[in-house]
Amino acid sequence: MRNPLSGWLTGLALVGALAAAGPALAYEPLVEKQSFTIPEFTTQGGETIPDMTLGWEAYGDLNEAKDNVILVTHYYSGNSHAAGRYAADDTAPGYWDSIIGAGKPIDTDRYYVIAVDTPVNLGAHNPNVITTGPASINPETGKPWGMDFPILTIRDFVETQKALLDQLGIESLHAVMGASMGSLQAYEWAAVHPDMVERVIPVIGSGWSDGDLIAWLNIWGAPIRLDPNWNNGDYYDGEPPTQGLAEALKIVTLHAQSPEWSNGVFGRAWAEDGQDPADSFDNLFKIEAVLDGAGAARAATSDANHFLYLAKANQLFYTGHGESLYEGLLDIEAPVLIIHTNEDLIFPGDAVRETATLIKSDGTPVQIVELQGTRGHLDGVLSIAQAGDAIAAFLASESE
Amino acid sequence: MRNPLSGWLTGLALVGALAAAGPALAYEPLVEKQSFTIPEFTTQGGETIPDMTLGWEAYGDLNEAKDNVILVTHYYSGNSHAAGRYAADDTAPGYWDSIIGAGKPIDTDRYYVIAVDTPVNLGAHNPNVITTGPASINPETGKPWGMDFPILTIRDFVETQKALLDQLGIESLHAVMGASMGSLQAYEWAAVHPDMVERVIPVIGSGWSDGDLIAWLNIWGAPIRLDPNWNNGDYYDGEPPTQGLAEALKIVTLHAQSPEWSNGVFGRAWAEDGQDPADSFDNLFKIEAVLDGAGAARAATSDANHFLYLAKANQLFYTGHGESLYEGLLDIEAPVLIIHTNEDLIFPGDAVRETATLIKSDGTPVQIVELQGTRGHLDGVLSIAQAGDAIAAFLASESE
Repeated sequence: MRNPLSGWLTGLALVGALAAAGPALAYEPLVEKQSFTIPEFTTQGGETIPDMTLGWEAYGDLNEAKDNVILVTHYYSGNSHAAGRYAADDTAPGYWDSIIGAGKPIDTDRYYVIAVDTPVNLGAHNPNVITTGPASINPETGKPWGMDFPILTIRDFVETQKALLDQLGIESLHAVMGASMGSLQAYEWAAVHPDMVERVIPVIGSGWSDGDLIAWLNIWGAPIRLDPNWNNGDYYDGEPPTQGLAEALKIVTLHAQSPEWSNGVFGRAWAEDGQDPADSFDNLFKIEAVLDGAGAARAATSDANHFLYLAKANQLFYTGHGESLYEGLLDIEAPVLIIHTNEDLIFPGDAVRETATLIKSDGTPVQIVELQGTRGHLDGVLSIAQAGDAIAAFLASESE
Repeated sequence: MRNPLSGWLTGLALVGALAAAGPALAYEPLVEKQSFTIPEFTTQGGETIPDMTLGWEAYGDLNEAKDNVILVTHYYSGNSHAAGRYAADDTAPGYWDSIIGAGKPIDTDRYYVIAVDTPVNLGAHNPNVITTGPASINPETGKPWGMDFPILTIRDFVETQKALLDQLGIESLHAVMGASMGSLQAYEWAAVHPDMVERVIPVIGSGWSDGDLIAWLNIWGAPIRLDPNWNNGDYYDGEPPTQGLAEALKIVTLHAQSPEWSNGVFGRAWAEDGQDPADSFDNLFKIEAVLDGAGAARAATSDANHFLYLAKANQLFYTGHGESLYEGLLDIEAPVLIIHTNEDLIFPGDAVRETATLIKSDGTPVQIVELQGTRGHLDGVLSIAQAGDAIAAFLASESE
């Protein structure tokens, strides 16, 4: 086997398996993926999507007053599997299992935690993801949407989640929280539905996509557009652009880490003993082989068009999507607990601190917790337990 | 015109044009590209390349003792045009013209400055570059080498330069200096030819490629390998992989800048008034259009296989290429002036400082000058004049 680490890098298990290294027991009851349908979803851009069907999971029990709900919004390559296992022999629990469960910071004896698969979810071919996007059949044509699927925004993701809450009769959120792209949804929730949101916990994210992130998101998607199998998004009756998608996911994987990982774990080690990279273009350094393995594994359950729609939604994001860049942040009234790391290459510390400053500027309470670690952006998933006490205290605090 | 900045981003003029913004007059005499040939070059890997022909330029006059020579080694996407103009109406002088010329820090009234095009130079199709690489005709087959060209190292680049000095009867270097990949050549020169090198000025570079840079160099090259026109490097009788090469050069362009540039200059501005990126995948943000323009312009004079050979040479680099990672740095005896910036994403400040610490550890004198700017890595070219006084003083100082 070329890549000695391919085992723990397999597919979507990557993040979960690493998160599971902690001592905490997994959320106990087996988790069931459920689904709901929005018969006619109107996008922020004014287009209509019939039969928007999405998956969701819940941990804990909804109380009678339906006021103990915490909504967890997921990251770019993630889905609604935030905690627990589907089956007793699952190799890994959901990605934030270290903080969600009985007696954990997000205590499922007390709170009812809901997580929802986004539309255009990257894992369109992951059997545990239920999503609607370019890979879905357009009921009006009987064929996959492809690039005819309407462009969606982070606001649209929020409105699909609100539609689920409406169906469940839930009118308020004790908190909304999420990592990375999930933090963008958390900011958006607090800005556009201030009457429903009592607390906000954005993790490893800032209040808008800046020019630098817009540029990198373009570069993330470039390998897909270059793959001849992509064919302008029309590949559902042929070979998908798996190679381009794998290269795109390689970039994401590296960008979401930190040099302390690539240098500290791999350095200049070769992929194979005796196969000197100086001798052939086929001989790789270990970090190259690991990234190849991670990209290929993640591509196997992902969809290339969905990747591009997610990149677009992230590029388009600024809290509130209003007339000015900052007014959405000023619309946030609920207390905010921001969790981040200064080693983050995707949402750098300065942008996070600037976001906090703007939210605070009209009196909204904001706390910042800084994670320590060697994994960069990914520490918002892998090292979230460091913020466990702060999360528990914040959730227990009075809102207004 | 889609991209309002495409004018100043055209081709290899990018860096030069920006550097020319300073007040200093360009190096005065018109510059002539010369060439030299190594009849049989043996690579570090033991392979033979017949008729290795490379371009070079010189500024100033060689003194009788031939001991006033400063060798300038160039960066990844650069070439030997370090100063001056080929014709009076050239739009821009060479990239370090701000510090090379009569009365400038590298005073051509005193020093004879030599710059050499590397083998596998990126600008294989730039009429002002003379290089030998995969795009060259292999005299033994009468066809382009393609990926049969031997893998080269930074050491090999150094040895081609030494061959030129041998032909010119030059036996010592008052200094060797270069930016980025040029700094790697400077470290290598000092480590492997300590008797010839009197002073070293590595700019925006560290003493080895670490795991993180190895990974990014892989990602830089990925779009080329994905372009079906690349055809495993065999494209010289068909369409070249221009699109993949342009995407690769986009990544380099962004990586060599800093968020202060992408956010400060472009932010969330649209490429075209009235063409909201939310409305279509064809509607871009300005930073995307600028990167597209820069990538396409640079691709027009570049060669994709040469790009991959350069990436390999950079991945393989550690000073001295010896038994251990650090012994090459300990072999450096000449005084060292390191110039860098903490905003550098390619050679971060920590790696540069670690390099300095290792060189100093056995008593070799090392000074560090930190550039201030908003352009990241590229400030090593654009803002080099900030270090002008330090360079002048270092060149005037006694060596050992």
